[in-house]
Formats: sequence, structure tokens, C-alpha cells
Amino acid sequence: MPESPPPLISLLTDFGTADTYVGVMKGIILGICPSARIVDLTHEIPPQDVAAAAFALDAAWSFFPEGTIHVAVVDPEVGTERHLLAVRAGGQFFLAPDNGLLEEIIARPDPVEIRLVENPACFRRDISTTFHGRDKFAPTAAQLAIGDVAFEDLGPPADRGQLRRRSAPRPSIDGTTGTVTGQVLSVDRFGNLVTNITAAALPPQATVHVAGTEAGRIPLRRTYRDVPAGQLVALVGSSGRLEVALNQGSAADRLGAGRDDVVTVVPVPA
Amino acid sequence: MPESPPPLISLLTDFGTADTYVGVMKGIILGICPSARIVDLTHEIPPQDVAAAAFALDAAWSFFPEGTIHVAVVDPEVGTERHLLAVRAGGQFFLAPDNGLLEEIIARPDPVEIRLVENPACFRRDISTTFHGRDKFAPTAAQLAIGDVAFEDLGPPADRGQLRRRSAPRPSIDGTTGTVTGQVLSVDRFGNLVTNITAAALPPQATVHVAGTEAGRIPLRRTYRDVPAGQLVALVGSSGRLEVALNQGSAADRLGAGRDDVVTVVPVPA
Amino acid sequence: MPESPPPLISLLTDFGTADTYVGVMKGIILGICPSARIVDLTHEIPPQDVAAAAFALDAAWSFFPEGTIHVAVVDPEVGTERHLLAVRAGGQFFLAPDNGLLEEIIARPDPVEIRLVENPACFRRDISTTFHGRDKFAPTAAQLAIGDVAFEDLGPPADRGQLRRRSAPRPSIDGTTGTVTGQVLSVDRFGNLVTNITAAALPPQATVHVAGTEAGRIPLRRTYRDVPAGQLVALVGSSGRLEVALNQGSAADRLGAGRDDVVTVVPVPA
Repeated sequence: MPESPPPLISLLTDFGTADTYVGVMKGIILGICPSARIVDLTHEIPPQDVAAAAFALDAAWSFFPEGTIHVAVVDPEVGTERHLLAVRAGGQFFLAPDNGLLEEIIARPDPVEIRLVENPACFRRDISTTFHGRDKFAPTAAQLAIGDVAFEDLGPPADRGQLRRRSAPRPSIDGTTGTVTGQVLSVDRFGNLVTNITAAALPPQATVHVAGTEAGRIPLRRTYRDVPAGQLVALVGSSGRLEVALNQGSAADRLGAGRDDVVTVVPVPA
Repeated sequence: MPESPPPLISLLTDFGTADTYVGVMKGIILGICPSARIVDLTHEIPPQDVAAAAFALDAAWSFFPEGTIHVAVVDPEVGTERHLLAVRAGGQFFLAPDNGLLEEIIARPDPVEIRLVENPACFRRDISTTFHGRDKFAPTAAQLAIGDVAFEDLGPPADRGQLRRRSAPRPSIDGTTGTVTGQVLSVDRFGNLVTNITAAALPPQATVHVAGTEAGRIPLRRTYRDVPAGQLVALVGSSGRLEVALNQGSAADRLGAGRDDVVTVVPVPA
Repeated sequence: MPESPPPLISLLTDFGTADTYVGVMKGIILGICPSARIVDLTHEIPPQDVAAAAFALDAAWSFFPEGTIHVAVVDPEVGTERHLLAVRAGGQFFLAPDNGLLEEIIARPDPVEIRLVENPACFRRDISTTFHGRDKFAPTAAQLAIGDVAFEDLGPPADRGQLRRRSAPRPSIDGTTGTVTGQVLSVDRFGNLVTNITAAALPPQATVHVAGTEAGRIPLRRTYRDVPAGQLVALVGSSGRLEVALNQGSAADRLGAGRDDVVTVVPVPA
């Protein structure tokens, strides 16, 4: 029987990397579970932006191996009575505040187990009112990783219905015209506008419009280079969602568009 | 007897992450000590800002496990004859230039051992005049980590009195009124103003004022949410120091305040 | 016989760290090769700037131990038919798109082996048109690291002459006056102007001029502190190239100079 690999923990926060908050979380984790491998998903979620955190985690987690523990700390209500959630889904584990950050993961069709993390053995002895990433999330992840605490012992089970909702915007399809209307969820470093419209919702041929811009109809293609340099193109990006891009440039800059802008996909007859 | 965990090295610099300086230090470390685990504390110390580095390291190190080697390279005098210090304190190790960066750690009441790192076996053969992080700090940390060089063999011992001082500002207490006067040491990503006033110096009830602002008296509370959203609050933050914060916003932006600004704590009779 | 250390993989991209692209690459790598140690060289290459990536990798790789696998993904032609290269040089491995990123490494005088990575066993089953870092580079690096695929089995060999050139600017020497003319390749976080003029090309005594600036003759010295604070100095920097610096300040800010600016080195008779 092959030895199982050392535990893998991913971190996603809005802490930035200028302060030492993330480093301190890693110090706590490695003090409890010295063999843990730690991967930074990102720490540049805009401060307290739960929706951006949910998008980032949802786009990334499925590329990690079975058993990975994802720790997501964007926590505007730190210090209040909000719950800390542990979720087992898709063969992986997730720790996050109960604020809608895990909404997409909890909504998966396959079995999802949810626990309210309350076991005091998971926490540091002195718990601050302002930094649960250090005092609760990091030690819980490390103890789950090293096997000191089983998932079932983290705290009582919870149902989806009990949890706080973020009420993320969902794309809609017009039953008559087939037009799909969605929104920009994120703008990446290249200026690509990543939407909430998944590949499955797209007609085979279509043009795309970004509301409030003068760009006109943007063609739906397979890759950036299917249009000449300097031209706009819509395509299914690496996370399986519709993106609006500019070949060798920034669509966000060209269009003056960004997060929450409305994107419309109009079918073109074959 | 349980096997001891692999060595843990933390890095704190003003090198930023756009250049490859930090990556190169890690290449040197892992070439010498392949089993080392490396944690980034931060690399975004403002260039040559020794005081900011001292604050960041002092706030973070105690959350790391025994035996951690902290390497701090903010080194305006690189290439001159300034010493390279190795310090053993609180069960951990510290490497830094002799420029006051380790002042708070060296001032600890418990035993502190100091060495001037001079053993040429610790350094790369060719030593540049501009990048001792790569040529001296990284290989010294790695050889200490792997056990090739003992702490005592790094170089001759030194006394606190010999070392260069940074003369960090210290808070003062007015003997008559009990008013505590300190300064903002750091502004974090959330816009919290972190001061040099520790929890122990605070009266049980107080109001807080930030000099040069029109905010008036800011109440001292336990957590951000003890005031309504959009209001200022003072509290003991996660590093045990007084912070001025804005519930769901940035105190630094609201107050137009920042580093070195004077903060006053006025006791309120019970 | 000592056990060989676990594989070491370095990553260099233009993905930034705000998005989860880099984290996802690490998830893929660690899923295939759980023992891999991963070092970030930098992810802040300006978007699609192949020349900046080439400079950064060339300045850093030689400080890594034998066997390191360097993965460099700055890939403006992703989704087109451009090749993916694997190179073995100087005892290390390099993966990058065939766009000139590896030009300096391939030009080394010692033996260099080049393969076009085409073995489908190296790639993820579903290959996106936009994110080969995740779908081709990361799994290839991980399978090379764990030994599932030998370098020779990555794909067919290639000759230097077949590869795309970046045509990097090279410094020139005037045969009569000995004046060396080069260019600024990079501005680091401290505002140092790093040029493409290597130490070997420098006369023993010289003054340096940055075209288009009013700074006059900048003295060539050994280290920053060989001139008073606030003065400009030229020196051989940590990567073995001529740099223009300002003692305790930013030369880039002082001179208003930056990337691609012409730098002239004029010999001074002894």
C-alpha cells in the first residue's frame, strides 16, 4: 500500500501580503502539523468582499487533489456570533465563515456534509476578537490535517437551509429569443472579464454585448487568437465560464467595464 | 522518541515580489538544506524601512514553533562593515543586520544570546557588495537549519550594549491624569491603525484620540462590531496592541491618519 | 549513498497573485508529484512581456540546485500552434513557450538539449485554449519531477536554429574609444536600473551616462556606499550586470529613466 501524501492546505484570504497575517497563520499551522504543504490561492481578495472570495475559491478548488483542506477567511463579522463552517464536498474539505463564501460549493448536486466548528480543542487557548484566521481557522485546519480531530468531531452537523445566503446573481435565459443575460464576476490581471455564464448555457453561435459600452457585437470564438490583435473576442475561459477578452490587450481597459456589469449573449442562427 | 520536524525558516525583506531576489534566496537555502520549509512573513516592507521591519517581525515571530529560524533582511548599509547578527531568544533564532531591526527581540527579559556572524563557512564563496540576503543570510540560515554550523560557531558573542540602536518611540503615561500617549506603528490592509500602546498600558475604560484629526473621542471596545457599521472604534488588536479601526471600513482613510501619528488614550472614570 | 532530495520546481509567470491561476498550477503539480517543493520566482512579469520574463529567469536560475525544474509561462500565443519547449542546460531543466523566453539559456556555450514537448501523457486530458500553464506546463513539470516521464520522452529533439528568436538587444563596444553602449533591462523595487552590460565588458575605470537625462557622468564604484547618500553611482550588481543606483534612494525616480533607456560607459584613463 503506498504511503499517503502529506496533508495539503490551501489558503484564501483578504489579508494581503504586506502585513504578516498570512505568515502567522502558516506558523500556527506548521507548529501543529509540521508535514503540511501549504499553497496560497490568493490573499488579494478586496477587503471583506465575500462574493469575490466565493468566485475565486469556486474557480480553483477542483484542480486540487483529493483530501485538500481549503481555508477561506474573508470574514467581515469576525468577533460576532457567526458560525465557522467545515464542509466536506467533492472529496475535499473547506473551512470558512458562515457568510455565503461556500454557497457554490454547498450547492453542489453530490453529497455535501456540513459541520459547525465548535470543538474548543480546535482553537487556540486565547481567542482574539479580530483574528480568527490565526486563532480558529489555522489550528482547525492543522488538526484536521494531522488527524488529531476527525471531521465528524469538529462540531454538530448542519443543514444547507440553516446557513446564511449570499444570494449570488444567477444568469437568466429568455425562453423566446434564447438570449442569455449574466454579469461580470471578476476582472483578471490580463483585463479579461470573467462572467457567471457557464459554457453549458451558451448557444453554438452567438454575439456578446457588454452593457453600457459602445463595443457592439463581440464574436464568440474558441481562443484569443481567433480574432486579429487588438480586437475583442468572447470565449469560454479556463474556468469554464464565458469571458470577454482583447487579443493582446485588456478588455476591461478597452471597454471601461468591470465587476457586476451586465453581459448579454445573443444567439446567431446557423 | 518522535522524529524532530524538518527545519522551518521564515523570510522578511524589503525586496518585493516583482523581482526574483526572494526566489533566489530560496534557491540558495534549498540547495543547502533540501528539507527546509520556508514561510514568507512579508517582502513588502517599504524599501530600507528598518522600523517597519522591526514592527512586522516583532508582531509575528511568537506564533511560530520552537526552533524556527527567522531571516530579516532590510539592510540599507549592505556592502559596508555593519555586522550581521544571529540571536537566540524565546526558543527561536533570528538573523538580521545590526541596524536595530532586532531591537525589540533583543530587549526581551528572558535570556538572549547574540553572535556576530563572521564564520566564512556560512557564506557563499563570492560575496557581492549589494545582495547579502543571497550571499550571507540565506546560506547561514540553511547551514544553521541543517546543522552544519552550530549557533555557537557562527561567530563571536556580543553584548546588547555593543549593538546599534534604532531608538524606537515608546509610549508614555502621564502620572497625574493617566493619559497614555503613543504612536501609530503601522497601517494594515484594512486601514486599521496599529499603535505601540500595549494592552497592559490601557485603563479599563477610555476614549482614544488621533492627533490632527477631527474624529473626537473614539470609544475603547472589545471588537469592531461593538459599534455600528461606519463608526470608529479603538480596541486591542490581534498583536496585543491598541488599534483604531472603522467597523466595515478603513480608519486610515476616514481619519486621513497614518504611520507615526500621535494617539492619546484618556481614562474615563468608571 | 545519500537519498536524493525531493524535486524542486520554480514558477515564473505573468499571472499576478490576485487571481488563483498560480495556486491552481500548484494544485495540479502537487496532485501529480506530492513531494515537490515549489518556489515562486515571480508572478509579476508585466502581462505578455516575454523580454522581462527572459531577463528575470536568466538572472535567477543559476542560484538553484542541480536538477531544479524551472517553469516559465509568459505566453501571448497561448492557444495557437506555438511549441512548448523543454530544455536541459547547466544541470537544470526549463519549460517555456517557444517565444524567445529561453533565448539566453539556449545560447549558453555548454551543451544544451532541447525537446518539443508533445507527449500527450504529459498533459491534462482536457486542454483549454487559454491556460496551458495549468493544462500543459504544470503536469509536464510534475511528471518530469516524479520521474513518470523522462526528459527524452517529452517529445522530439529540436535544434537552436529552429526556435523562435526574441532578438534581445546586445551591448556594443566602440573599437576605437572603448565606449560600451547598452540598455536598461529592468528597474528593480529599489529603483536600481539594471542593464545588459556584464562585468566582463567594463573597463577598469569609467563614468556612466544614462541617455536623455541631465545627470552627467556617474562614477563607476564597488558599492552603493562608495558615494555619499543621495548621489548616483554605477556598480556591478548582484546578477553580474552594470546597474545605476542612488545611495539611499531610487535612481529611476531621480533620473526619470527606465526600461530600454540607453546607457553608455566611457573609459577613464588610469
